[in-house]
Amino acid sequence: MEKLTIAAARQESAIGQQASIDGWIRTRRDSKGGFSFLEVNDGSCLANLQVIVDANIENYESEVKQLTAGCSVSIRGEIKPSGGKGQTTEMHAASLTVHGWADPATYPLQKKRHSFEKLREWAHLRPRTNSFGAVARVRNCICRSIHGFFQDEGFLYVHTPVITASDCEGAGEMFKVTTFDLKNVARTDAGEVDFSQDFFDRPSYLTVSGQLEAEIYATALGKVYTFGPTFRAENSNTSRHLAEFWMIEPEMAFYDLNDNMDLAESFLKRLCGDALSQCSEDMQFFNDRVDDTVLTTLQGVVDSQFQRVTYTEAVDILEKSGVTFDFSVSWGADLQSEHERFLTEQHFKGPVILYDYPRTIKPFYMRVNDDEKTVRAMDVLVPRVGEIVGGSQREERLDILE
Amino acid sequence: MEKLTIAAARQESAIGQQASIDGWIRTRRDSKGGFSFLEVNDGSCLANLQVIVDANIENYESEVKQLTAGCSVSIRGEIKPSGGKGQTTEMHAASLTVHGWADPATYPLQKKRHSFEKLREWAHLRPRTNSFGAVARVRNCICRSIHGFFQDEGFLYVHTPVITASDCEGAGEMFKVTTFDLKNVARTDAGEVDFSQDFFDRPSYLTVSGQLEAEIYATALGKVYTFGPTFRAENSNTSRHLAEFWMIEPEMAFYDLNDNMDLAESFLKRLCGDALSQCSEDMQFFNDRVDDTVLTTLQGVVDSQFQRVTYTEAVDILEKSGVTFDFSVSWGADLQSEHERFLTEQHFKGPVILYDYPRTIKPFYMRVNDDEKTVRAMDVLVPRVGEIVGGSQREERLDILE
Repeated sequence: MEKLTIAAARQESAIGQQASIDGWIRTRRDSKGGFSFLEVNDGSCLANLQVIVDANIENYESEVKQLTAGCSVSIRGEIKPSGGKGQTTEMHAASLTVHGWADPATYPLQKKRHSFEKLREWAHLRPRTNSFGAVARVRNCICRSIHGFFQDEGFLYVHTPVITASDCEGAGEMFKVTTFDLKNVARTDAGEVDFSQDFFDRPSYLTVSGQLEAEIYATALGKVYTFGPTFRAENSNTSRHLAEFWMIEPEMAFYDLNDNMDLAESFLKRLCGDALSQCSEDMQFFNDRVDDTVLTTLQGVVDSQFQRVTYTEAVDILEKSGVTFDFSVSWGADLQSEHERFLTEQHFKGPVILYDYPRTIKPFYMRVNDDEKTVRAMDVLVPRVGEIVGGSQREERLDILE
Repeated sequence: MEKLTIAAARQESAIGQQASIDGWIRTRRDSKGGFSFLEVNDGSCLANLQVIVDANIENYESEVKQLTAGCSVSIRGEIKPSGGKGQTTEMHAASLTVHGWADPATYPLQKKRHSFEKLREWAHLRPRTNSFGAVARVRNCICRSIHGFFQDEGFLYVHTPVITASDCEGAGEMFKVTTFDLKNVARTDAGEVDFSQDFFDRPSYLTVSGQLEAEIYATALGKVYTFGPTFRAENSNTSRHLAEFWMIEPEMAFYDLNDNMDLAESFLKRLCGDALSQCSEDMQFFNDRVDDTVLTTLQGVVDSQFQRVTYTEAVDILEKSGVTFDFSVSWGADLQSEHERFLTEQHFKGPVILYDYPRTIKPFYMRVNDDEKTVRAMDVLVPRVGEIVGGSQREERLDILE
């Protein structure tokens, strides 16, 4: 007998199959006609499979009628067409095995919606909710697309060190890594910290960026990318600042800024397109329940040709807009979120790539333009998201670097 | 004009194409006939492309004849059939641009082989060597296979936290993570470390395993895997102990030990098969230069059905072998490397899965067998590698866990 996921069992093609499914009970409803409806989920998709269990099953009274949310079961039966709303199929159970019970008096996940604050308290059960399940499936899809895109483009995946002694030109505050007993840190006779007694013999940190290592690989292997955890010890509790996050860093030898922009644009189109097509049910759920602009925004990324505008042109547009911003706009200053939002959401109404930034607000390694005032840097801005990719063409002229 | 990688330009199918290539010079040899042979590599494959540059190219004297190992170039020309040994094609250059020079007096990579010890000193140039390039390509291939395998099997990729307050049942010594100034760690009035002043308000560490988090996802989403960096602060300088390494942890709900063994076996076959077929040139290089058993070992993993033997049977085989081991064998003791090697290399001459280990040498969460002496644990052993996968069926019976 074939084991089917709920996602597979919900497909029309499964109709007529004798199969078994595994999963967790979401709800049980007993009919007066002497049978029960179970909603079963296994995380393979947002939707549940409806299972109809007849009272003549051996353990109907002793077990089936005791099933509550969270119970873990395996069910064998036949997949049949369903007349129910929102479902093509249902299972008619031939047998049901309970692996684990969930005491309804203490099992906290109920049919109602729970706040994210409340779900923080039940971290071990959160993935069983629709929201966290959808996040996990979409995140998996995005990760698959990231690797798929770069592998298709001939990039090599490299793992750069997480523990490092380098601070990568100060991209952010760093966490220290140590094996010292913090109560009793080793000291030299002069009273300094004696790092020779620490694990790595020197001050060690969590990486803020794999850029330096990825550049080294790129200048030997051509096109490489990293995709790994990165750390910033900044105490900013915003939705855009995390102490630990996964970051993608592609590095390409022989690419100029236009090549970089082409790559960033096709990368984002691929990721958004895959999320929309491969996780349509989950994305619709987010659009219905969390943010009703999500589908439009992502479809906009897929469909539109990204506008490419120099920083200087962007400042000009902002100055002539007649809009009063909280932060004033002037050539040479970094653009603020409100400026980026105006450009993408009001003016261009779509993704924008800004490039040729003032040299003074960008790091030393970006290639200087002939005007000697701007450098070959770019930022990709997306409506309602803001900056999503930053990059540059590197300065390759040794005399200018020196 | 199409940009080709060296790997693509070396294919017979490229013959006749006008193309451009980018890369780094490995060697230059001048013919008396008034032209030069360049060996160019871009990291897309182990082998170089031979480029023939005629003296009538504009910058022949001024630049081409100055080229040395490490120079970075772009070359346009035609791909032609080659009569040279080990190559199907060669490029006849129409123009050549130098992006970066490498002073032969100071550029350290020479045509000869360099020791790994020496290459440690030139970390920024190592990926330009055949060995490190091959490692990077094979590692990329393995990573692609890891994701490909699990995605094909319907697993979700989850990212488990790197910074953690949990020590995962003591899988190894942990690194501490802190933002304290180590010279001046905050103290409470009682003289203890005052973690309320540290970034996370509590003692924090680098993860030794994502198992706990992955189990939580598995008991909601069915089949998940992690693939991320893991840390052990153990001061053992062996080839099998690293402070930082990437680990794969699959967790599956509703899988028993046989399912786990099937998964481990097909996973290893996929990885070894992909390395042999997709990186044949690099694997041949390792077989020629590093370990002449590598191809046989990997092909053995692909071709053989893994033997499945209980721990008890394995101890019996070892006891009856007549071999004198450094560590004696007796039921209840952990097997040593020499025992594992005997089983895979001498007795079974192939991969072996040992299972049903004594309860006393395995953690509490593994499912107890009816004999109450052994648990549903397994280790996959491979010739010349040793243990490569470990796993277990979890104890799901609450009364036994309690």
